[in-house]
Amino acid sequence: MTPRYGAVTIIGVGLLGGSLALAMKTRNLADTVRGVGRSPRTLDQAAALGIIDAAFFDPAEACRGADLVVVCTPAAGVPTILDAIRPACSPSALVTDVASTKAVICAHAARTWPAPLRFVGSHPMAGSEKSGPEFATPSLYEGCVTIVDAAPRATDARARITTLWEAVGARVVPLEPALHDALVARTSHIPHIVAGCIARLAAAAGDVRPVVGAGFRDVTRVADGRPELWRDICLTNPAAIAEGLDALIHDLAEVRRMVDEGHADALEAFFEQAREARAKALGEP
Amino acid sequence: MTPRYGAVTIIGVGLLGGSLALAMKTRNLADTVRGVGRSPRTLDQAAALGIIDAAFFDPAEACRGADLVVVCTPAAGVPTILDAIRPACSPSALVTDVASTKAVICAHAARTWPAPLRFVGSHPMAGSEKSGPEFATPSLYEGCVTIVDAAPRATDARARITTLWEAVGARVVPLEPALHDALVARTSHIPHIVAGCIARLAAAAGDVRPVVGAGFRDVTRVADGRPELWRDICLTNPAAIAEGLDALIHDLAEVRRMVDEGHADALEAFFEQAREARAKALGEP
Repeated sequence: MTPRYGAVTIIGVGLLGGSLALAMKTRNLADTVRGVGRSPRTLDQAAALGIIDAAFFDPAEACRGADLVVVCTPAAGVPTILDAIRPACSPSALVTDVASTKAVICAHAARTWPAPLRFVGSHPMAGSEKSGPEFATPSLYEGCVTIVDAAPRATDARARITTLWEAVGARVVPLEPALHDALVARTSHIPHIVAGCIARLAAAAGDVRPVVGAGFRDVTRVADGRPELWRDICLTNPAAIAEGLDALIHDLAEVRRMVDEGHADALEAFFEQAREARAKALGEP
Repeated sequence: MTPRYGAVTIIGVGLLGGSLALAMKTRNLADTVRGVGRSPRTLDQAAALGIIDAAFFDPAEACRGADLVVVCTPAAGVPTILDAIRPACSPSALVTDVASTKAVICAHAARTWPAPLRFVGSHPMAGSEKSGPEFATPSLYEGCVTIVDAAPRATDARARITTLWEAVGARVVPLEPALHDALVARTSHIPHIVAGCIARLAAAAGDVRPVVGAGFRDVTRVADGRPELWRDICLTNPAAIAEGLDALIHDLAEVRRMVDEGHADALEAFFEQAREARAKALGEP
């Protein structure tokens, strides 16, 4: 089933918002796309790239009469934007977001949005170290796992959001927001923090450029992401991240002890288990 | 200047040794390649793939009359192999290795090999999470940074080793072994250990497969390496690895505190610095 929307409002026309706009336009899923941004330059750029048909500074104004609203800003700002647009959204408008944390945002919407709740949180795992409308592409969501809030409220809205993501090529996985946040802390948020610490550790050693290989480039690639995005992720998922960092620090201290004491067997077992753990996490045989 | 060798002995015909053999054969740099291995299956495979012309179990026997000997085993075993082949090597034979740590190996050779020292340690940074002769390719060293021992002894041997690596496409960087080990601890060894801990942390959370994205795959890719190789790296570079792990654990604990206390500005500054540190380490603008 192909969904079809009249006016679609994208709040934040960067990589994720811009790509969703292009994906919907390419597939003829929207009559017009309204873009909301704070910077005239970004809005001009998005218009020039054919991402949006109309530009707005005021989120509420852009939501009036819209059939679909997608909030594509960093996580910590999403509740404030939901509060701002709520009075302007029509009761039938479908509303979602694309932030990397879900519990705070979904709980805020459930608490503040009058029934029927038309907000269903989403998290398309299509992040990239690139950002900005210039990197937007209509194929960004093809094959991309997208988590949607599996909480029982607003099931018809969830079905419609699922249809939307599937129409742009995503594979939808329903997950309860708190479980989502606990799992992605370990598969995404903590790896990102660690990549940053690894980059800092290397740079602190002086000029390491001659001994930087493909491994270093891969391990640290995500550290090139937008600082304000990752700041917001930490601010909206602190418990799971802190808990996981404690476990990680404990594990690193264990390996440090094996290295210091020269435990050949324990080190080999560690690297063997790491390989198996990676295969398990990736679902590889 | 293109070097040309009669008999070349490769001790350990896996990814690195096999690729060097193929690179030399493709460029007509060797008359015959002798391969040394412990497993008949690996030697048969290497012969079937055209990597070696003759197979040996005994390293010393394979080195008799060879013009070039390349030890391609995990780091901790290299000194033992050097001791075993020394009496069999001709005084004019050139000897090198490809291990990821250099201080222990180069010091052992300098201490035990009678003058003129014909051993010059190498570290081609062409590692991969793949291993075995089936992944060997003649192009592995093209554009690959290869560190060679910059210590003042055996300078004519170093010039010849440099010529060899350049002939198979590598970019040679001379580095003093202890400095090499200190730097690669931070650009390679510690990132590898951390990738393993990240994989273990994710797998311990249960079934994370639905929320595993490209970022996790990249951050943990190196964790798929050979356990015995990385065990040996830890065993032969313990001081630099332990020192760097201490610094990393300290930095992670700092970030954990920012997350726990919700320090927005400090978190944003951390992610900003991480991005800059990565660019600096990679030599990007």
